[in-house]
Amino acid sequence: MRHAFTLYYWPVPFRAQVLRYMLAHAGAAWDEAPADRVAALHAAAVPEQPVPFMGPPVLRDHAAGKWLSQTPAIALWLAPRLRLLPEDSWGASMSIKVLCDTIDVLHEMTRNCGMMMWTEEDWARFAETRLPRWLSIFEETGRRHGLSRSGGTLLGTPAPGLADLATAALWATIRDCLPQLSGLLSAHAPAVMALSARIADSPAIAALRAEQAKAWGDAWCGGQIEASLRHVLDRWAGKGGKTTRES
Amino acid sequence: MRHAFTLYYWPVPFRAQVLRYMLAHAGAAWDEAPADRVAALHAAAVPEQPVPFMGPPVLRDHAAGKWLSQTPAIALWLAPRLRLLPEDSWGASMSIKVLCDTIDVLHEMTRNCGMMMWTEEDWARFAETRLPRWLSIFEETGRRHGLSRSGGTLLGTPAPGLADLATAALWATIRDCLPQLSGLLSAHAPAVMALSARIADSPAIAALRAEQAKAWGDAWCGGQIEASLRHVLDRWAGKGGKTTRES
Repeated sequence: MRHAFTLYYWPVPFRAQVLRYMLAHAGAAWDEAPADRVAALHAAAVPEQPVPFMGPPVLRDHAAGKWLSQTPAIALWLAPRLRLLPEDSWGASMSIKVLCDTIDVLHEMTRNCGMMMWTEEDWARFAETRLPRWLSIFEETGRRHGLSRSGGTLLGTPAPGLADLATAALWATIRDCLPQLSGLLSAHAPAVMALSARIADSPAIAALRAEQAKAWGDAWCGGQIEASLRHVLDRWAGKGGKTTRES
Repeated sequence: MRHAFTLYYWPVPFRAQVLRYMLAHAGAAWDEAPADRVAALHAAAVPEQPVPFMGPPVLRDHAAGKWLSQTPAIALWLAPRLRLLPEDSWGASMSIKVLCDTIDVLHEMTRNCGMMMWTEEDWARFAETRLPRWLSIFEETGRRHGLSRSGGTLLGTPAPGLADLATAALWATIRDCLPQLSGLLSAHAPAVMALSARIADSPAIAALRAEQAKAWGDAWCGGQIEASLRHVLDRWAGKGGKTTRES
């Protein structure tokens, strides 16, 4: 059977995870390009690229005959096709806002995708300041849009949409791959972590996560920056980082 | 007269410039929040913020009673209201793709908003590799979507839309504020620079630029990173950086 979409990304659950959560949740048929094809597309001269782009993820939509890069653009293309986008333009804009927030968190957690390595001191400061603030931004967004009541309008919606899936793809994946952080996450964003867990445990997403865990273990962003992050995280957790956050 | 929108951003053209180009081009009535109001909003506890956010720009839409952060989300909200978004979903997605590319260029030009300072060596490498590649990505995007013919479908459209304005807000502003780069820009993206100049010179945008130049001079991103960038740029240009790029 021909897949409807092909996703080009490295074999880790980092930037493309939100697209995978969307595709899996919607029951879409997609395949993942092998890493050497991703590398070849990434390295190709710009005029040879099917869509001119700097970095993956790239999505190919076979039926539409289209290629697209940039996660917010791909999400905006996919979401209405997978019935994951609020129909009103305010809901759509807020969904993209939440998605952009998740992308910023990925950047900060990896110090701009490995531009600098983590030091224990820098991590401790991040874990005390910006990471809790990011978690509060998600928690407060959920609170204002009805997450704690049954049936939110943006997060915790009766049928999960782009904002729910982006949120879960960020925070449930961090919890899955970097469990040292789970105490801090739940301390600062209990409703968002409960929502993320609920989505992550839904049958389609649970199957995706099981497949990823089998193929890649607990790899998250990959590369030297993941090694740097794990190094400081282990030391931070050893010093009680996760429990002081819960107090 | 009550303005339709209020924009919250620092008094430099950097990230918010695309929103200003959109508002000015469409003839929208907006005002700019004073810097101390921007700082207060930015520093406020998350539950006190009108929209939970980490960094500006933030837009307030007075008529709709809405506040929004994240440039792609704000653009997605504004563009259809200002008649700047293609009506087909492919054109809308590609417009957001181009906008996201411009945001990535701002990040790279400022080493992730000043996370590291520029060294001469790092700048020389960037000016030889990633910056020309970014310019090629824009030029090739224009070429495929009809920029060199009269009336492109994405860039160089008869009535400038989001993609045109984002492109011009990036490259014409860099040319305005960092003229040492103009040779390199035109060498690698002649059609895109011609389009950017045409939009920058249109009456509404020319008036915006004149106002900004009067208020802020040639300030671009501000802060230590702008000083670092200007330092390496002057030395690079002194060594003929801009002319070797043209050969």
